Amino acid sequence: MYGPGDVRVEERDEPRIVEATDAIIRLSASCVCGSDLWPYRGIEDLEWPAPMGHEYVGIVEEVGSEVTTIKPGQFVIGSFWASDNTCEICRAGYQSACINRVPMGALGAQAELLRVPLADGTLVATPDLPADDLVPSLLAASDVLGTGWFGAVAAEAGPGKTVAVAGDGAVGLLAVLAAKQRGAERIIAMSRHEPRQKLAREYGATDIVEARGDDGVAAVKELTGGLGAHSVVEAVGTQESMMQAIRSTRPGGHVGFVGVGHGVEVPGMELFWSLVHLHGGPAPVRRFLPELVELIWNRQIDPGKVFDLELPLDQVAAGYRAMDEREAIKVLLRP
Amino acid sequence: MYGPGDVRVEERDEPRIVEATDAIIRLSASCVCGSDLWPYRGIEDLEWPAPMGHEYVGIVEEVGSEVTTIKPGQFVIGSFWASDNTCEICRAGYQSACINRVPMGALGAQAELLRVPLADGTLVATPDLPADDLVPSLLAASDVLGTGWFGAVAAEAGPGKTVAVAGDGAVGLLAVLAAKQRGAERIIAMSRHEPRQKLAREYGATDIVEARGDDGVAAVKELTGGLGAHSVVEAVGTQESMMQAIRSTRPGGHVGFVGVGHGVEVPGMELFWSLVHLHGGPAPVRRFLPELVELIWNRQIDPGKVFDLELPLDQVAAGYRAMDEREAIKVLLRP
Repeated sequence: MYGPGDVRVEERDEPRIVEATDAIIRLSASCVCGSDLWPYRGIEDLEWPAPMGHEYVGIVEEVGSEVTTIKPGQFVIGSFWASDNTCEICRAGYQSACINRVPMGALGAQAELLRVPLADGTLVATPDLPADDLVPSLLAASDVLGTGWFGAVAAEAGPGKTVAVAGDGAVGLLAVLAAKQRGAERIIAMSRHEPRQKLAREYGATDIVEARGDDGVAAVKELTGGLGAHSVVEAVGTQESMMQAIRSTRPGGHVGFVGVGHGVEVPGMELFWSLVHLHGGPAPVRRFLPELVELIWNRQIDPGKVFDLELPLDQVAAGYRAMDEREAIKVLLRP
Repeated sequence: MYGPGDVRVEERDEPRIVEATDAIIRLSASCVCGSDLWPYRGIEDLEWPAPMGHEYVGIVEEVGSEVTTIKPGQFVIGSFWASDNTCEICRAGYQSACINRVPMGALGAQAELLRVPLADGTLVATPDLPADDLVPSLLAASDVLGTGWFGAVAAEAGPGKTVAVAGDGAVGLLAVLAAKQRGAERIIAMSRHEPRQKLAREYGATDIVEARGDDGVAAVKELTGGLGAHSVVEAVGTQESMMQAIRSTRPGGHVGFVGVGHGVEVPGMELFWSLVHLHGGPAPVRRFLPELVELIWNRQIDPGKVFDLELPLDQVAAGYRAMDEREAIKVLLRP
């Protein structure tokens, strides 16, 4: 990306092993993330030009001399943070805050080849090479599924719970899937887009709320005996959405927020009186990857459905445009 | 209170049973709360004149016709929110957000007699009339102990955890006691007042940090291998203290905030990247009262030590002054 709205495809030097813990993978697929739209829209500044992309699946080409568990030829998935998976923070399940973490976005996964630091800690291999129709779902696990899953975990979605999801992007839709998988009793998807509502229902939504802001809050309260939902996932990242999430949650309930909060300020006094739990941030996807890969491998979940447009990598600019204009939920790129 | 800084003692009509679920209690002791200082200092506006006080222990004089578990002659403790203890929110442990809650502060517990609504749900009776030296500790359970306890619970203080406490008022000191009782391995009290440091150590603090703000954060990080504490209790209610608490917590750790956050704004982007859990608000003291009363009754804890000044009720104005000028941690009033 050369600047807001300016995405180009160009030849770059092939990545090489830099650290003995690196792996090089040949990408089977990559994609455009909702968070890539922040710089695309000029809301977030980068050092231009910036390589883009942080979601990836592919086949290992080469590994550094200290890599022991990942081998050339394996099909692997990793998260948007490379992590050692051994430090105290990783062991507590917060690999996205690993003390040695490396942001994959800076390496650029919208590409043919990718260097993955800390390969043993970062990558999870599938049992075998996957069938081609599993690739989109495995790619989804790299970020949007893992992030929606974290939102549902942070919101403590589970048996007996009513879960509301604010945001009908790929992450929000997959938070619906996650809530369903985790046994939620009732799942309220907040969406005003018919195709997204349909996918939300396929993923397990029991109710749809089209209203937003205070009206959306009132609608959730009406569905929950005036109390609010037990669990609310915030998957947008705006002030309106964050406040809608907090206000839709009952006292003692949980807000899991995974939208990257641009310009969000949470008023302390309102948070105090709300008595909700607030937890979120960059999802520690690595924590969930083994479980997610297994669910996908066994065809128990189909998160790949969020990809409603597939383009060859050299048409990536059209992919950004389609997501920016909300013509596509999520764009898959084939190198 | 007739206005900021203007506390008067006057004769008022005796409280009477209004609802069939009420009880009237004759107060054995009451006290001045840190939160009473907000209107005293003119930071929070009330409808003047306002009856004051929301912490109370005493002997039941009379009960309404529908009260079944509380009887005249019993010594009872209640929280600063009257709650039915039967609604869905109460049953989930959030009695301070009971759908039928009544704020006790509006009734005025800095008095000789007090009407307590929802007596069955609100009041907890001791096994017998307490020895006089237990009264301060039982009174502490009504708010400051219950609030410090909630802070420690919200921060998930427990075995193997390093817990930091920001704030050395009565609530902060009792959060130290709570963390100790809950099995915390290491407890860092943040205080620059020698007598309060001493009490913090008596209550179980293993380390004292005198620095505040960013220096305080750096000191906690230095004590925790650069990672931050697992659990941080915020017991002040200012922007500086809230940010100090969030920044002193490791990724994945828990902030329990019980300071009433005046003018606090939590920046969403920083909260996002911090990956901490944030939970707090008006403490559901009723959830903890049976356990706290038992610990006090069996003399396993001595929270009453936070009262370092005792005055007759008619000198309540001097009590406010002493707390405002930080000459006293907490003032006990004897009617």
